[in-house]
Amino acid sequence: MNSEQRKLLLTLAYDGTDFCGYQTQDNGPTVQAALNASAENLFGYPCDVTGCSRTDSGVHARMFCATVARAKYPSLVTSIPTEQIPRAFNVRLPKSISVYNAVWVPESFHPRYDVSSKEYVYRFINAKERSPFFNNYAWWIPQTISEQSVIDMNRAARYFAGEHDFSSCMAQGSNVKSTVRTIFNADVRAYSECGERLIDFYVRGDGFLYNMVRIMAGTLIDVALGKKDPESIPSLLAAKDRSGMGKTAPPHGLYLNRVFYQSSEKPGYQSEVIV
Amino acid sequence: MNSEQRKLLLTLAYDGTDFCGYQTQDNGPTVQAALNASAENLFGYPCDVTGCSRTDSGVHARMFCATVARAKYPSLVTSIPTEQIPRAFNVRLPKSISVYNAVWVPESFHPRYDVSSKEYVYRFINAKERSPFFNNYAWWIPQTISEQSVIDMNRAARYFAGEHDFSSCMAQGSNVKSTVRTIFNADVRAYSECGERLIDFYVRGDGFLYNMVRIMAGTLIDVALGKKDPESIPSLLAAKDRSGMGKTAPPHGLYLNRVFYQSSEKPGYQSEVIV
Repeated sequence: MNSEQRKLLLTLAYDGTDFCGYQTQDNGPTVQAALNASAENLFGYPCDVTGCSRTDSGVHARMFCATVARAKYPSLVTSIPTEQIPRAFNVRLPKSISVYNAVWVPESFHPRYDVSSKEYVYRFINAKERSPFFNNYAWWIPQTISEQSVIDMNRAARYFAGEHDFSSCMAQGSNVKSTVRTIFNADVRAYSECGERLIDFYVRGDGFLYNMVRIMAGTLIDVALGKKDPESIPSLLAAKDRSGMGKTAPPHGLYLNRVFYQSSEKPGYQSEVIV
Repeated sequence: MNSEQRKLLLTLAYDGTDFCGYQTQDNGPTVQAALNASAENLFGYPCDVTGCSRTDSGVHARMFCATVARAKYPSLVTSIPTEQIPRAFNVRLPKSISVYNAVWVPESFHPRYDVSSKEYVYRFINAKERSPFFNNYAWWIPQTISEQSVIDMNRAARYFAGEHDFSSCMAQGSNVKSTVRTIFNADVRAYSECGERLIDFYVRGDGFLYNMVRIMAGTLIDVALGKKDPESIPSLLAAKDRSGMGKTAPPHGLYLNRVFYQSSEKPGYQSEVIV
């Protein structure tokens, strides 16, 4: 580590079931508070933990990035070899969080502002009866979703791709400067796992409004169940009206799947930090 | 349902994490006690629930069969249509148990004695750091298991197939008439799921001694880590000595995967009851 590189960038995953979301709050355990407590225990002084995103209660992350900095000058230093830092965190963290990787980044690096894109997965389980293994990990849809319905979901999903004003996919009461976002990719994949039929909605974009992926997921289920025509998506987006879209899908089906940074702009870490 | 068919055969799945095993006991919640309470609530009188197998605390079942009979004469009767019985149970059961199917079987049917074969899966997760999503669902192996090691595990597993005295794969202190069992199939499959490397040991046989699959799984990990030669399995089996095998793998990686009955002998249900 040279003197320019003074923050740690952690790559981690968490099961959001038992957390009141990522961000520290008074009402219950959070991922940020757990990371903070572990960092302070490990390094011995107050630390600032900054995440790449906020996630709601029950939402999971297969990949999440967070920086750990010393709260006061001077910068973070440690004699622990960098490759041993993930394990040093993991022995201190609850089992529902795991650090996979650690790299040093410059003080100027910001894990949220410097994100170039993020990918979410929304997972559905389609089964006549609920599966005990997916209660907290997928939205159970008991009605039959045929192969044709998956094709329809996929057609609908692809209309989300591109630069759009996503006002109609934003929770009411949100306050943001711009509701325009660019979605690079959106598609739906059905597959079988352990005998269960799972359907994953993948969406990658430069940013997401509050509840945007969950509103998209709820709309795709309307399409799957024949309540909405896939061809109606462009006009529903253009209407900029939340009420035209489907309901907000429950949080436990949502996964922050991947986080991307531009290495060309910020040296010192991988161009695509992928677990 | 005719007068000869007086018991219900349920096909179900459960997440064993929060149960003290299948069988009713005084010290904590069990799958059998939960099924019993749901049956009595549903039918309105005392019921006997009999399972196809016992499973230890933490062990899961992707498929389990259990009969529900009325505890006293006359036989179980209900006005609920058979196809609605799974849901009628599921609204009463804890979320960690789900009934997938129900059929009527004769009083003479026994869900354990009439099993022709059972298949177990033992699941390993091979990752440098633990995954928060598999804490209760696979045995974490942090050391690298190469492709060649998986081939070695598979070679070792195949030596378990056939009719053998499996004394060396039985927990000490067990009391059974015969330690001879026939294994129809045993193999190891490595694959990727949600970016994680998983390794599944599949084993199907006419019966299993206490801890047999978990001792086999512990032995396969010794093979994977180079502590045992795959070619040593036949002599370790022949030695009939528990201490020659690997350690007993932890319960949370074990799944009862499928249960098979012979329809030719017992009409009234599927030949292979597969979820």
